[in-house]
Amino acid sequence: MSGNRSAGDVRSVAEKVFAIADAFGTGAELSLSDIAQRANLPLSTAHRLLAEWVEWGGIVRGDDGLYRVGMRLWKLGVRAPTARRMRMVALPFLEDLYEVTRENVHLAIRDGLGALYLERFSGRGSVPVISEVGSRLPLHATGVGLVLLAWAPSDVLEELVASGPRKFLPNTMVTERELRPRLAEIRATGIARSVNELTADSFSAAAPIRDQTNEVVAAVSIVAHADRSADPQYAAAVGVASRGISRALGWRS
Amino acid sequence: MSGNRSAGDVRSVAEKVFAIADAFGTGAELSLSDIAQRANLPLSTAHRLLAEWVEWGGIVRGDDGLYRVGMRLWKLGVRAPTARRMRMVALPFLEDLYEVTRENVHLAIRDGLGALYLERFSGRGSVPVISEVGSRLPLHATGVGLVLLAWAPSDVLEELVASGPRKFLPNTMVTERELRPRLAEIRATGIARSVNELTADSFSAAAPIRDQTNEVVAAVSIVAHADRSADPQYAAAVGVASRGISRALGWRS
Repeated sequence: MSGNRSAGDVRSVAEKVFAIADAFGTGAELSLSDIAQRANLPLSTAHRLLAEWVEWGGIVRGDDGLYRVGMRLWKLGVRAPTARRMRMVALPFLEDLYEVTRENVHLAIRDGLGALYLERFSGRGSVPVISEVGSRLPLHATGVGLVLLAWAPSDVLEELVASGPRKFLPNTMVTERELRPRLAEIRATGIARSVNELTADSFSAAAPIRDQTNEVVAAVSIVAHADRSADPQYAAAVGVASRGISRALGWRS
Repeated sequence: MSGNRSAGDVRSVAEKVFAIADAFGTGAELSLSDIAQRANLPLSTAHRLLAEWVEWGGIVRGDDGLYRVGMRLWKLGVRAPTARRMRMVALPFLEDLYEVTRENVHLAIRDGLGALYLERFSGRGSVPVISEVGSRLPLHATGVGLVLLAWAPSDVLEELVASGPRKFLPNTMVTERELRPRLAEIRATGIARSVNELTADSFSAAAPIRDQTNEVVAAVSIVAHADRSADPQYAAAVGVASRGISRALGWRS
């Protein structure tokens, strides 16, 4: 592959192609110079590789000269079996949960130190949330994240605490001393309750989803107004839905 | 780029990288030899480029040795503004439609000669459908497809008829003589009704979604059992939902 490498940059052509895609990880609309800078490529190389991306359809260039992720990547991405299978199995249960509560309903999996949102329903009257499909929010400050953290390998908590987790609000727990007993309680009760930890005025009840190996592979939650946090219906509904999804994945209690 | 090309294959490295991805367009789990064959690459090249894809996370290799689309591509794909904006705007209306009818609810955009499904809700009791998110079904045999075809540039119908469209069932229309008056009627009424054209025992009512330029950019439908095809509630509900989504996109009647 050495023929593909320019002086000082040891990356292969494929790695540079992927670096262009990674530039879109934190922005939806980027200029050529944004992309070149984020991908750490000379403008000429970025321009040439972007032209190949555009030719393929993975990236589109608008009349405004800005580049965006194209539908070709969307079509490819939705074929990812992890997201596809989980979504197909969970969808009817998420619909039920939404119908019963009319609140925000979330489905997430763990992605490193974040909770990656695979699905989200929001009622018109439900509390505004910052998550959307494809969002990645911190494990320690969301209901689904705390569930995923509670059943993650123990080094994930250590890594999280060492990463300097952000204290979004006074209620957000960021130290191992606070988090350890809380995660133990979540494991004991099967429900994570989170009030005003990521955004003000919001309450989340979340529960684990298990597969046929009994491993926790995802989490489901309801997010409602904080003043509903004493209402037992949310934890009950989310507990039943999480078991339904788990059973549909082959889990047996 | 000539240094990147092997004898007889004039494709650039980036094009070969993309050819690997395209191999997953028609299969979810592929072996190395499947991929090499579909991408028209020697095994050694396919193996080397796949290793780069796996290193990046766009493709994953399972314990069974098969390759699948990875979550990195899912995360990138959901950032595509076309799908993301349409989905975010349409979702509350699709939820309403589902709640009122408890039938399958579909949202699709045109992708060449196909209808690409951006979203799908299915009730537990609703008729089974073959569409799922990311599916691409023929324009001439689905409710959403007929709507998208009715408002497509005229060369799309010509291209479709010339492509030898498949007659799935006796009701499926495949000739220009059949389709032209039908598309005119869809444009006049604003609703496409389709009975037993793609799958037996199913009925679809579909309506166009317009944006602020008055252009038809998507279609929404309900798919129910064929014996409900005389029930006027479906066309009414889908007509109202399509207008609601259009208004949310900036359309003014």
